[in-house]
Amino acid sequence: MNSETKKTLEKLKNGEITVDEALLAIKKEPFEDLGFAKIDHQRSVRQGIPEVIYGAGKTPEQIISIARSLNEKGASNVLITRLSEGDAEKVKTEIDIKYYRDARIGLLGEMPTPDGIGKILVATGGTSDIPVAEEAAVTAEALGNEVERLYDVGVSGLHRLLSHMDEVMSASVIIAVAGMEGALASVIGGLSDCPVIAVPTSVGYGASYEGISALLSMLNSCASGVTVVNIDNGFGAGYSASMINHMEVKK
Amino acid sequence: MNSETKKTLEKLKNGEITVDEALLAIKKEPFEDLGFAKIDHQRSVRQGIPEVIYGAGKTPEQIISIARSLNEKGASNVLITRLSEGDAEKVKTEIDIKYYRDARIGLLGEMPTPDGIGKILVATGGTSDIPVAEEAAVTAEALGNEVERLYDVGVSGLHRLLSHMDEVMSASVIIAVAGMEGALASVIGGLSDCPVIAVPTSVGYGASYEGISALLSMLNSCASGVTVVNIDNGFGAGYSASMINHMEVKK
Amino acid sequence: MNSETKKTLEKLKNGEITVDEALLAIKKEPFEDLGFAKIDHQRSVRQGIPEVIYGAGKTPEQIISIARSLNEKGASNVLITRLSEGDAEKVKTEIDIKYYRDARIGLLGEMPTPDGIGKILVATGGTSDIPVAEEAAVTAEALGNEVERLYDVGVSGLHRLLSHMDEVMSASVIIAVAGMEGALASVIGGLSDCPVIAVPTSVGYGASYEGISALLSMLNSCASGVTVVNIDNGFGAGYSASMINHMEVKK
Amino acid sequence: MNSETKKTLEKLKNGEITVDEALLAIKKEPFEDLGFAKIDHQRSVRQGIPEVIYGAGKTPEQIISIARSLNEKGASNVLITRLSEGDAEKVKTEIDIKYYRDARIGLLGEMPTPDGIGKILVATGGTSDIPVAEEAAVTAEALGNEVERLYDVGVSGLHRLLSHMDEVMSASVIIAVAGMEGALASVIGGLSDCPVIAVPTSVGYGASYEGISALLSMLNSCASGVTVVNIDNGFGAGYSASMINHMEVKK
Amino acid sequence: MNSETKKTLEKLKNGEITVDEALLAIKKEPFEDLGFAKIDHQRSVRQGIPEVIYGAGKTPEQIISIARSLNEKGASNVLITRLSEGDAEKVKTEIDIKYYRDARIGLLGEMPTPDGIGKILVATGGTSDIPVAEEAAVTAEALGNEVERLYDVGVSGLHRLLSHMDEVMSASVIIAVAGMEGALASVIGGLSDCPVIAVPTSVGYGASYEGISALLSMLNSCASGVTVVNIDNGFGAGYSASMINHMEVKK
Amino acid sequence: MNSETKKTLEKLKNGEITVDEALLAIKKEPFEDLGFAKIDHQRSVRQGIPEVIYGAGKTPEQIISIARSLNEKGASNVLITRLSEGDAEKVKTEIDIKYYRDARIGLLGEMPTPDGIGKILVATGGTSDIPVAEEAAVTAEALGNEVERLYDVGVSGLHRLLSHMDEVMSASVIIAVAGMEGALASVIGGLSDCPVIAVPTSVGYGASYEGISALLSMLNSCASGVTVVNIDNGFGAGYSASMINHMEVKK
Amino acid sequence: MNSETKKTLEKLKNGEITVDEALLAIKKEPFEDLGFAKIDHQRSVRQGIPEVIYGAGKTPEQIISIARSLNEKGASNVLITRLSEGDAEKVKTEIDIKYYRDARIGLLGEMPTPDGIGKILVATGGTSDIPVAEEAAVTAEALGNEVERLYDVGVSGLHRLLSHMDEVMSASVIIAVAGMEGALASVIGGLSDCPVIAVPTSVGYGASYEGISALLSMLNSCASGVTVVNIDNGFGAGYSASMINHMEVKK
Amino acid sequence: MNSETKKTLEKLKNGEITVDEALLAIKKEPFEDLGFAKIDHQRSVRQGIPEVIYGAGKTPEQIISIARSLNEKGASNVLITRLSEGDAEKVKTEIDIKYYRDARIGLLGEMPTPDGIGKILVATGGTSDIPVAEEAAVTAEALGNEVERLYDVGVSGLHRLLSHMDEVMSASVIIAVAGMEGALASVIGGLSDCPVIAVPTSVGYGASYEGISALLSMLNSCASGVTVVNIDNGFGAGYSASMINHMEVKK
Repeated sequence: MNSETKKTLEKLKNGEITVDEALLAIKKEPFEDLGFAKIDHQRSVRQGIPEVIYGAGKTPEQIISIARSLNEKGASNVLITRLSEGDAEKVKTEIDIKYYRDARIGLLGEMPTPDGIGKILVATGGTSDIPVAEEAAVTAEALGNEVERLYDVGVSGLHRLLSHMDEVMSASVIIAVAGMEGALASVIGGLSDCPVIAVPTSVGYGASYEGISALLSMLNSCASGVTVVNIDNGFGAGYSASMINHMEVKK
Repeated sequence: MNSETKKTLEKLKNGEITVDEALLAIKKEPFEDLGFAKIDHQRSVRQGIPEVIYGAGKTPEQIISIARSLNEKGASNVLITRLSEGDAEKVKTEIDIKYYRDARIGLLGEMPTPDGIGKILVATGGTSDIPVAEEAAVTAEALGNEVERLYDVGVSGLHRLLSHMDEVMSASVIIAVAGMEGALASVIGGLSDCPVIAVPTSVGYGASYEGISALLSMLNSCASGVTVVNIDNGFGAGYSASMINHMEVKK
Repeated sequence: MNSETKKTLEKLKNGEITVDEALLAIKKEPFEDLGFAKIDHQRSVRQGIPEVIYGAGKTPEQIISIARSLNEKGASNVLITRLSEGDAEKVKTEIDIKYYRDARIGLLGEMPTPDGIGKILVATGGTSDIPVAEEAAVTAEALGNEVERLYDVGVSGLHRLLSHMDEVMSASVIIAVAGMEGALASVIGGLSDCPVIAVPTSVGYGASYEGISALLSMLNSCASGVTVVNIDNGFGAGYSASMINHMEVKK
Repeated sequence: MNSETKKTLEKLKNGEITVDEALLAIKKEPFEDLGFAKIDHQRSVRQGIPEVIYGAGKTPEQIISIARSLNEKGASNVLITRLSEGDAEKVKTEIDIKYYRDARIGLLGEMPTPDGIGKILVATGGTSDIPVAEEAAVTAEALGNEVERLYDVGVSGLHRLLSHMDEVMSASVIIAVAGMEGALASVIGGLSDCPVIAVPTSVGYGASYEGISALLSMLNSCASGVTVVNIDNGFGAGYSASMINHMEVKK
Repeated sequence: MNSETKKTLEKLKNGEITVDEALLAIKKEPFEDLGFAKIDHQRSVRQGIPEVIYGAGKTPEQIISIARSLNEKGASNVLITRLSEGDAEKVKTEIDIKYYRDARIGLLGEMPTPDGIGKILVATGGTSDIPVAEEAAVTAEALGNEVERLYDVGVSGLHRLLSHMDEVMSASVIIAVAGMEGALASVIGGLSDCPVIAVPTSVGYGASYEGISALLSMLNSCASGVTVVNIDNGFGAGYSASMINHMEVKK
Repeated sequence: MNSETKKTLEKLKNGEITVDEALLAIKKEPFEDLGFAKIDHQRSVRQGIPEVIYGAGKTPEQIISIARSLNEKGASNVLITRLSEGDAEKVKTEIDIKYYRDARIGLLGEMPTPDGIGKILVATGGTSDIPVAEEAAVTAEALGNEVERLYDVGVSGLHRLLSHMDEVMSASVIIAVAGMEGALASVIGGLSDCPVIAVPTSVGYGASYEGISALLSMLNSCASGVTVVNIDNGFGAGYSASMINHMEVKK
Repeated sequence: MNSETKKTLEKLKNGEITVDEALLAIKKEPFEDLGFAKIDHQRSVRQGIPEVIYGAGKTPEQIISIARSLNEKGASNVLITRLSEGDAEKVKTEIDIKYYRDARIGLLGEMPTPDGIGKILVATGGTSDIPVAEEAAVTAEALGNEVERLYDVGVSGLHRLLSHMDEVMSASVIIAVAGMEGALASVIGGLSDCPVIAVPTSVGYGASYEGISALLSMLNSCASGVTVVNIDNGFGAGYSASMINHMEVKK
Repeated sequence: MNSETKKTLEKLKNGEITVDEALLAIKKEPFEDLGFAKIDHQRSVRQGIPEVIYGAGKTPEQIISIARSLNEKGASNVLITRLSEGDAEKVKTEIDIKYYRDARIGLLGEMPTPDGIGKILVATGGTSDIPVAEEAAVTAEALGNEVERLYDVGVSGLHRLLSHMDEVMSASVIIAVAGMEGALASVIGGLSDCPVIAVPTSVGYGASYEGISALLSMLNSCASGVTVVNIDNGFGAGYSASMINHMEVKK
């Protein structure tokens, strides 16, 4: 680490460069060589962690080009989110991705072997929440987590959720995905004893206001241990859950 | 009924008045004597149904004056809602009301004997919701209903609610009072098989937005059979619940 | 009821199973056999009560599959809401449903004979509110209610409503469906003496904000006895009205 | 009119001033002497039309000073709106105003004799709307209109309004003042045949949102002929109504 | 007027019917014969006043059918608003309407000769506001008003408006149509001395929020004499302006 | 675990009770003895985990009473949040709490020795955010975490944050507390490689709308790994951060 | 300047016209000849400043016609904003414009040589913000500014921005274009020492609410020197930046 | 500049420290000595530029302490914004500040001699906007600008503004301060040819929503060259205006 700056300093010490040349060299890349490069470094330190391309608003050609460029820079795995089925078909003609339709995710490379602390449970209130839930689930799997799915256990059929207390109690992190009134997050937060990441979905009509109702409900959850991500942000929930599930001791 | 109009017509028939005089008389009070008076009449047909004074923004003097006027017109019971403790003290010096502090309600006259179809259950998510719940409960009692209270059974302590399934299943109407994320209404709606009236409360902070969060949550409830009243409108919920609990066959 | 648990206990008593085996058996289905099964049971106790499929966002194939599955489990009637005419055509090729076009509802099975306490009146402010009103009306009919329709009686033509006071006064429950300023609910609430369920519709433009204006108007109704459901939620209104119209004594 | 500019031009013609002096003189007061002065002129052309001071946020001293200054400039009548009772007391010690408590208006000078086309009717939904209604009524009276008051005729007691159809039908302009659901404006708009100015009030609680509910309701009125002013803007309604009631032929 | 009721009373007086029969007859049509019929009557008292069909959401077939029905009931003129060009073509094949494309209005019958007090000025801030302005203008013309148009005089080119002070000062009523920041209404309100009806339009992007910005701006206008109608409600503005422009003395 | 149900079953097996008595006993406490008791059990399994009293809206007397009751039930530590300084003084006269003024938290019992995976970093954008940050920090400490504070490092003085990259990079969990534009969470999320919990605060004025601006900003963070809690919810952030910092393998 | 009025006055002085004729002439064009014409004059005083056509909502035919008309009036350069690629193709068949696809801008005439005080830096948070940024950049170039582009330097990759401090520090004006959480403006405002114009974009999903989140974030920026334009208003930002970059001493 | 890093490098070159020691030293203060210090340096490069303390939410003691600390660090001038009159009195007992009451600003040190490009014009719509305008004006003066004030020239008295076109046309930067409908910014933007900074104020009532109406109006201004700051943010407007008025050539 800091090898470039170190080399510069050594060159200065050895009289190969002047103080002014050293100063210029240091100023030129302050962030890449003064400790800030840790940022990107640490993010890829675990093997198989994919680079991510946010596919929405990008053409298949752009996606192919970015994916190839990441590949060349050494990324073994690349996750392409918000990728429509049609675009996935086009991308496939050029790159060998596996497409997860429900999740609208394309994956270049292999799914890694799970290496997290425990299991991540992804639960949904209804069947319409499944695409967002799958985005979270596949993201988490691609980041090296074992994922358990528990779909359509919303409060209007509360007994279904209560029948699966085993899964709820044995999860390390729970992702609660729900639209409409978003009560699922609170109910799970009240029953479980692990971190719960709530994902409001834009499912619903009328006063659900494309997810505001669920979002507010989740932010106001009376249950402790619930945090929230943006509406329909399955990727963000999966990413955060994976971070938590890979917590380890720092010196 | 229609006695005034009938008398007018009889006078006309008997030649006591002219056609024009009859026409004028009829036009003068079309609504009080042409069937529309049914409105007020029917509302007081069951014995002991109180007249209601909305106390907020009225001085104790105004309340006393209105209550006396209603009394003189024959109202045996008068319910005064949104009555602060201080104002209640002042009203008491002039009229013999019983004051329900938690409910902020003053009652002139006797609590009627319950005569509804069944019991009304009033449940709250937290202890802070109790004033609104009490407004609903005392209103319902004053309108002739047996009321059961089940407080602080919100989703963050879901097992407390689940321990009281007997009360939930045996109610005729349930009033679910909750602030914050308002999930209680959905949970009760999903567990019970009777009409549920949801009352959002302005309890909470931050993104609860004085009840909007709970309101939206309740409007979007996935559970069938849930209807909603205005934020903090305990009176309205108690009134509607009583109407439902007194349903009877009309010819 | 509780027959499974009872059998388990009897087996234990008889020495056929051990305490641990009994414990495991009991834990396995706590909700289906410990009183909580009452939930679904009670909902179908009256004959002919249909199961409901929320059709929006489901393919005709999915709807056919779910309907068949419900049929096999014993549901004689199945109500499919939010079913477009095109999808209804496709469903019909496989299942024998009757399609109510205005209501966007498909019904598998026969309309039950009305067995409620009285009549449900469905009123609308304008002609554009009719689809939502029909959803409420057909839902109520499918749940065993006699329904009377009173359309296009909004406040801009108040005399039309006033000319139908008979229907208003003889209803057991009224469903008031209105967009724009939503005043119909308040006007009916002020004239009638039965529970009123208000349904805001997304009809309108400009500052009607897809139903918010009507929704707020209805929540703030000065008339007692008015409760509100979500924007365009005709089904919810019909369901709640039917529940109220089938109130009966519980022991 | 244009006498100053005309004089300048005549001076130029007569050789008393140079072209440059004329140009400078004309540029100096382009708006006061080039037709734009019509603006203020026309506003005071009818006798007794008061100048207006918006009292909110002004100290009694400031109000006294402005009123005196207007008086010196020839204003016989001065209307001071949003004047609290306490401040009115202080103003009275220095200037001889008449204070209208409900309207929170102080008037310096005499109420003019009504000279409008017809009567202005001011109606309110409830008793809490009266202060705003009185602001409208006293403003209209001070601007030379006959005003009729019809208070507490909101939709929850619709028969009271219907009993006063004579007043409604004989008004030239109606000001409908209502909070909560604001339905009064629509109902009156649907019954009357004259311009209706709707004033939403901030009366209410919960989802009335300080007048938004009434405002939206009024903007979405299905009844033609209804226009709206700002929440609680009694003055603006009175002013506009007076303008309409003083319509006359322009050449 | 009241002839039916009068006849009933005379029959009673003459002994042709009994008191009960008279009572029943009176109750049967209380609004049509007890003065309330004045409502519709007065609206059509001036010759040529058209009936109005709100075309949005109606099929050409429905429009044709309603127009014919109105025609049969004696309406010489029928105004069809929010009528798309395509639908107008279809309607024309059956009924002889004149179509005003910019205004999206179809007119069955002849434009009446203007008979108002003065001229109605319709002004817009930009060229994109013209469709709404034309809806107002054509409506006003169809209701018997002389209309002057002053388009694209918004505040970003204020000198254009100031160059037309003659039109502004000579109008009886001004309709100010503007999107974006909606300042036109305030500017005109500050310059003119007649009633101003402000119409916010949904023109704009970003934080114009489909007309909210203009709506709020207009409601908060510092200029007296400005009232507001719903976003894009050209018809309502034209209708109200015509009412004002036809003010006359009532006894 | 399940000892009560087990005892019941053993009594049944031993013939001490009948099948019906066993059934009744089991139904009576289904949640406390059928595995659901795990909920509360697990929450207190680590030593020193405090019970929590939400102090807002409770009187000192109520707080004292609840705290004593929890103490009697065996809670060694009790955390009282949203406790004003005045109320804390009153509570101290009866119970021996330590009061953290900035955090508005009272603690009954001893601060536990930190036993989490790593350190929790609490950062704020400005000095006004400190109370919310302290609520988070003291909560986390009371739940057994080492906490590092980094205050007033908002984006307007970005170099201050950049000077503390060591703390940012060595944290296990970061709590980013900010009002106004809430950019701190994104900046930290973009620089760090651990879970970030964002807490919007109601600090600001004008268009900060009591925290909405910061809340939306945080929900829309482009940086992965950021989740959000309610406005001003320092407790919730501290609680969730502690959960994450105590992640451990479940079997 | 004022030549027309001057001529009129001289004619009057010379007896060529009467006082009344002079008065009429002056009133006819008060704004064009009494100093107000300065407005348009000054705007075109620097050579090459283009006239601007807002292309959205205009047909290619309308654009061609306006452009030609401006050209005839002497405008050498015409900028057509919000011009779709398809429409540009059609315009090109008639007029010789250069089309900037990313910026959706057509330019008739030549790009002027930059003559501003310094460079304008246009920075974006992400790649999706580029169209808005290009609208700003090309506008600024067409108004005579040297523009430097720095794209995709948002806070999730803060090191990229920090690596370009030279560009940031050497800019005269910076335009910060960002959607989602809009933090870029604050970060740049905190790092730079020149005026920053923030442009929120409608890029994002969920709770970004089409740019509201970024807009609020930017308005609440803690960094001094940041002002804001409407969502997606690249043109306005480029125009204002150019104004600032062309500041010069006025006498 | 960079003297510390330079010294470190020279020490290394001279063998006084090792490469590792040099590396450590450099990492310790990367931003203060690697060019980023330019930030703070440049901000104080013009003489007399004050440091700023945001007074809101700070005690007089805190303000005194911060002011002294800034003074010791060499700040000759310190501006204290949002300082109440009461707090100013207390601060004065310890530090020699001059207090500007309308602006709620305290100034330690002397007002600098204006050295900007031209004059800054501060205009308000009404008298209630003056405190915000004064905050802007005094801030600008304290930053070395000549300021002209033009108060109470809102659109309801447009002729007053038009009578001051000289001031409008001769300003280098204009700050337009307005509440209510905020039209002033658009009107000035349409009349002037220099950068306009719009400041919405929270003045108003009803649907002005504490400045939202003015804010939206200003953001949607049709006039080019208008940018906006936060509601009531007079300081920000003054600061940005001063930055623009001090534009100079950068190499």
